[in-house]
Amino acid sequence: MRPNDRAKDQVRPIKITRNYTAYAEGSVLVEFGNTKVLCNATVEENVPRWLKGQGKGWVTAEYGMLPRATHSRTRREAASGKQGGRTMEIQRLIARSLRAVVDLQAMGEIMVTVDCDVIQADGGTRTASISGASVAMADAFQYLVDNGKLKANPMRGHVAAVSVGILGEDVLCDLEYVEDSAADTDMNVVMTEEGKMIEIQGTAEGEPFSHEELLDLLDSAKKGITEIVAVQKAALAD
Amino acid sequence: MRPNDRAKDQVRPIKITRNYTAYAEGSVLVEFGNTKVLCNATVEENVPRWLKGQGKGWVTAEYGMLPRATHSRTRREAASGKQGGRTMEIQRLIARSLRAVVDLQAMGEIMVTVDCDVIQADGGTRTASISGASVAMADAFQYLVDNGKLKANPMRGHVAAVSVGILGEDVLCDLEYVEDSAADTDMNVVMTEEGKMIEIQGTAEGEPFSHEELLDLLDSAKKGITEIVAVQKAALAD
Amino acid sequence: MRPNDRAKDQVRPIKITRNYTAYAEGSVLVEFGNTKVLCNATVEENVPRWLKGQGKGWVTAEYGMLPRATHSRTRREAASGKQGGRTMEIQRLIARSLRAVVDLQAMGEIMVTVDCDVIQADGGTRTASISGASVAMADAFQYLVDNGKLKANPMRGHVAAVSVGILGEDVLCDLEYVEDSAADTDMNVVMTEEGKMIEIQGTAEGEPFSHEELLDLLDSAKKGITEIVAVQKAALAD
Amino acid sequence: MRPNDRAKDQVRPIKITRNYTAYAEGSVLVEFGNTKVLCNATVEENVPRWLKGQGKGWVTAEYGMLPRATHSRTRREAASGKQGGRTMEIQRLIARSLRAVVDLQAMGEIMVTVDCDVIQADGGTRTASISGASVAMADAFQYLVDNGKLKANPMRGHVAAVSVGILGEDVLCDLEYVEDSAADTDMNVVMTEEGKMIEIQGTAEGEPFSHEELLDLLDSAKKGITEIVAVQKAALAD
Amino acid sequence: MRPNDRAKDQVRPIKITRNYTAYAEGSVLVEFGNTKVLCNATVEENVPRWLKGQGKGWVTAEYGMLPRATHSRTRREAASGKQGGRTMEIQRLIARSLRAVVDLQAMGEIMVTVDCDVIQADGGTRTASISGASVAMADAFQYLVDNGKLKANPMRGHVAAVSVGILGEDVLCDLEYVEDSAADTDMNVVMTEEGKMIEIQGTAEGEPFSHEELLDLLDSAKKGITEIVAVQKAALAD
Amino acid sequence: MRPNDRAKDQVRPIKITRNYTAYAEGSVLVEFGNTKVLCNATVEENVPRWLKGQGKGWVTAEYGMLPRATHSRTRREAASGKQGGRTMEIQRLIARSLRAVVDLQAMGEIMVTVDCDVIQADGGTRTASISGASVAMADAFQYLVDNGKLKANPMRGHVAAVSVGILGEDVLCDLEYVEDSAADTDMNVVMTEEGKMIEIQGTAEGEPFSHEELLDLLDSAKKGITEIVAVQKAALAD
Repeated sequence: MRPNDRAKDQVRPIKITRNYTAYAEGSVLVEFGNTKVLCNATVEENVPRWLKGQGKGWVTAEYGMLPRATHSRTRREAASGKQGGRTMEIQRLIARSLRAVVDLQAMGEIMVTVDCDVIQADGGTRTASISGASVAMADAFQYLVDNGKLKANPMRGHVAAVSVGILGEDVLCDLEYVEDSAADTDMNVVMTEEGKMIEIQGTAEGEPFSHEELLDLLDSAKKGITEIVAVQKAALAD
Repeated sequence: MRPNDRAKDQVRPIKITRNYTAYAEGSVLVEFGNTKVLCNATVEENVPRWLKGQGKGWVTAEYGMLPRATHSRTRREAASGKQGGRTMEIQRLIARSLRAVVDLQAMGEIMVTVDCDVIQADGGTRTASISGASVAMADAFQYLVDNGKLKANPMRGHVAAVSVGILGEDVLCDLEYVEDSAADTDMNVVMTEEGKMIEIQGTAEGEPFSHEELLDLLDSAKKGITEIVAVQKAALAD
Repeated sequence: MRPNDRAKDQVRPIKITRNYTAYAEGSVLVEFGNTKVLCNATVEENVPRWLKGQGKGWVTAEYGMLPRATHSRTRREAASGKQGGRTMEIQRLIARSLRAVVDLQAMGEIMVTVDCDVIQADGGTRTASISGASVAMADAFQYLVDNGKLKANPMRGHVAAVSVGILGEDVLCDLEYVEDSAADTDMNVVMTEEGKMIEIQGTAEGEPFSHEELLDLLDSAKKGITEIVAVQKAALAD
Repeated sequence: MRPNDRAKDQVRPIKITRNYTAYAEGSVLVEFGNTKVLCNATVEENVPRWLKGQGKGWVTAEYGMLPRATHSRTRREAASGKQGGRTMEIQRLIARSLRAVVDLQAMGEIMVTVDCDVIQADGGTRTASISGASVAMADAFQYLVDNGKLKANPMRGHVAAVSVGILGEDVLCDLEYVEDSAADTDMNVVMTEEGKMIEIQGTAEGEPFSHEELLDLLDSAKKGITEIVAVQKAALAD
Repeated sequence: MRPNDRAKDQVRPIKITRNYTAYAEGSVLVEFGNTKVLCNATVEENVPRWLKGQGKGWVTAEYGMLPRATHSRTRREAASGKQGGRTMEIQRLIARSLRAVVDLQAMGEIMVTVDCDVIQADGGTRTASISGASVAMADAFQYLVDNGKLKANPMRGHVAAVSVGILGEDVLCDLEYVEDSAADTDMNVVMTEEGKMIEIQGTAEGEPFSHEELLDLLDSAKKGITEIVAVQKAALAD
Repeated sequence: MRPNDRAKDQVRPIKITRNYTAYAEGSVLVEFGNTKVLCNATVEENVPRWLKGQGKGWVTAEYGMLPRATHSRTRREAASGKQGGRTMEIQRLIARSLRAVVDLQAMGEIMVTVDCDVIQADGGTRTASISGASVAMADAFQYLVDNGKLKANPMRGHVAAVSVGILGEDVLCDLEYVEDSAADTDMNVVMTEEGKMIEIQGTAEGEPFSHEELLDLLDSAKKGITEIVAVQKAALAD
């Protein structure tokens, strides 16, 4: 049995709290069980230098973990003087995922930066980040619409993500930390709200996986993402 | 009148939430009005190299601000590759303040690190950090006592801090951001629960201040700190 | 038509030159068309600190591009003072892929580091790196066997990788630079010589991709990898 | 008794040598007993980017210690790749202190940078730096007046600083190294020549200090600063 | 006897391969025996900021070693976060040597950067780099002439370099690694094709050297450089 | 005529002040005209890790310039986060020069570090540094002898250095800044007190130089170094 009697294809309780902090144009606390990530979207009315003058916008992301988000303390990246490879990998993934559902051309020369800071880490921080950042970004775009800076929200829909994995014989959805560290295969899947794929990143930590296992993983991910999108929509409907 | 009809010598509503995150040995969310700081205390059973073999413990602190804790986005220190001078100054102050109320000899070769991460910044983040860190540290020491690692809590009492300032003719206690940026003089005062001084740092941002003004500032600080200590004690009594 | 009249599912001419440099325990120049990567495997008889005393070995990788491997000059990472996010992401992928086919337990406390340095970049440098590094690593293990440090080669088989992508309506195998920059979807697939999956990383650069497109991409990748494994085996048979 | 039979409230012999080096617009060697700091003021006719176009000037400071200014060798900060927290704290203090006596508006878009480099350290390097930098800055402003770049010197008066401390029962003025390392409380006081306060920074290294002790410390500091200002004025009168 | 029966004043077999990579405006693989350096010259139509608007060009160089160019693996400078002192020294030497044979005024506001990356190191990598970079730079200038960006090649002639040394009683030309590490004196000599001196850098690693020994070293260097220039000219004549 | 009516082969007035600061085991202020360098030698009773256990000592050096040692302010290397190429080149040269006159075997496992910090720069700072560091090192070794740590001073004699150059038709000795920046060729020569060569580094900044010019430069350098050694000996005889 999984912890808390979860079914194999069941995601953890997901909670999305909007307007979590006061200053960001979009501010979301996203919780997947014990994993808690604060996603703050910032609007700036200029774009990176290499994009200037093209009339297009940009969406980017940064990711960080508070030192004691984890079971034992992780060294603060600001103190060690650089962001590690894992951090860079994750923030690049979040940013690509967000851009995949935005019409950059329709944004004009505006930049949205989503900071995803992990308050508590119990597995799946990158997929929770993407799922929460999508809502924070939606609020930031609504802010721009409300303030007359944009005519319409340039998002084509939501983006959501979940991790799936193979543990022994089982395909599990939304792994928590103890499951993740024991899994043979770990896959992060990012999809549009229509269930089309934006990113899949699967890694065999132990045994290589077969074509059939891949299909099972994708199946499980799709089901999970459907649930996450429902929570995103409900949060935005409030 | 001050924002929210505060009296000149009145601190903002202070709230201390213990066990805010799940893994740290002491975890406190401290709120001074809109200023919110997460203070996580970590226990490690070894000390810095320069202290090894002396049978003494150590208490240290690190400070950070989430990029969008502030009205406009601040660059992430991990991304810029170093902690700024302000960050270093603050984390050194927090650490000294905490050590001032701990019997390091009684700790044995144990290290406590308190991470103070600002979730939302509305003035007084360093004094809120100290006030919250004191409670997080108390919980961490209690954890060590409960687990038989220490016979008794080596804290000699609480440490609390508040900022005071001169704005025009007025001496104000616990300045929020709009007050702080307009103040002529800004002073941070750190005291023991008995009202003895651990640190005072006063800066004339505009006009130099007189001896009498200093006395008024200290008076106001002492009153504020008394209230903060009461909140600390109430929080620990829960 | 593809450049050089390639069929959609055809890999570029692949060439693996062993013993390319004189000092490394395994040294391979791998060419996928105009993409050329030098893969040097180094044997060291100690392991990273966190692994010491466990009787296990370790395999790691580093990746770099010569500044003028690309059409226009890329800034030297040693001069800019840090490895970029893309570099970190790639070297982590190479290392995981190599470890997936090695019995670390059987290595004893030995470390193999494979340096993949791109001499010329025309798309697919990370997949060429993995495919070449597998051969360099095999030579390094053979060196350890020949010198009596290991009883048997701890590799369970070869690992090979290829990039596949969707360009317009077409699924293409082993994209070169001009194809890669125009592709809607880009996927890197890493497989064992038996065709089981070690890593898949698919990204929708433009339109999200469907389940059917994913299956077509995997199909194309599997066919390409079969050819690459044949070249690896032929090279080692020389 | 204090070293060299000093009275408790007596500052060390203070010496200010102007024009110590040949190129700086203001160059002062300041000596407080064995503490020797070279303060070089540089004039540049542009201001930091964030200040451009406002018609205001800027005063800043940097601080460093030669590696063998101290009893045992301190690692060179240029070699370790960053300035430590103590250095940053000190140079920020010096800069704030200098700005407190300058009418930045009256400077026009000119920047003065004062480099304080410690040749020999025997306690009180930051207060000696401030006291010497005030004179170097005065010379730099005079240079601007003499060259027709400024109509009048924009300094409102001198700024001077001294450290005071509590050692056992005694309040001591201008602590040297052996006193400083044994003191319970250490306070740096920065004042205008009229004796108004610009900065006070007091730290209880051992026992917290009382209100009465603070008053005694300030008293002692004020007396010491009066003497330092006299030396500053005499030096400038030469 | 020297390795491979070389005479004392004999350079190793030298080979210069042009157009070694596909994208650089000048691309040369230079081999001095087992020392192999890839020299890629890049043309950019702008100059460093400090040179803008003067109508002059600039030539610069960077140097790097692949981690396994050496007998044991050298740490990757990009990973350690900075270029070492040896690297900086060498790339400054290469750049000065190249500029010494170029009429910067005649270049116009164009910059040529030559990247010298050591593929295999067996002594004399800096002198091989200079000798190869001269040819790569010549090709880059020819590219500019062929494309109508320059009317004539601004090089005044070739620049070539060789290392000479004293080993025991013998003066040796073009030292390989085993000779270099045993030599008492090591000298790098850079000359124009007419045999005039651009740089000499001689170091007594063991015994100081006499005036007579210096003359013998220069004699040997001049003879070696004559041979290298012949190879450069032959390569460019192909 | 040269500035101050110097003859072509005449060195500037040289002054060596011993015991310039109080704490270093050897402390020398060396002046070559307006060039002033503080050379502090530190003794530590351990050696770098790679030398441990071999019973040998080590001599190393670091070099720095105070920001306003120069006509216009140079950025502080500690603030920019790294030592530049010129600094590294110079400190490596100083260290090699010092080691050339020391019997490292006779030192035992002791390390001497000489910090050369330029207080005022008017050309020839590296050669002044070497000439002053030799005396500071001699004092440090004498300190070790006096304290019974060494039986005898392990220096084989003094090391001294001078810069020479060609300006127009003239060979000049000990160039000051205005001469140095105008010179066609600049050469730094390091010799033992017997006039044997330790290092020569000659660079053609403008025209390449001939064999005859080299001989003239060496001649001039030798004469200058003879005078410098006399000043070194006189200083140590005091």
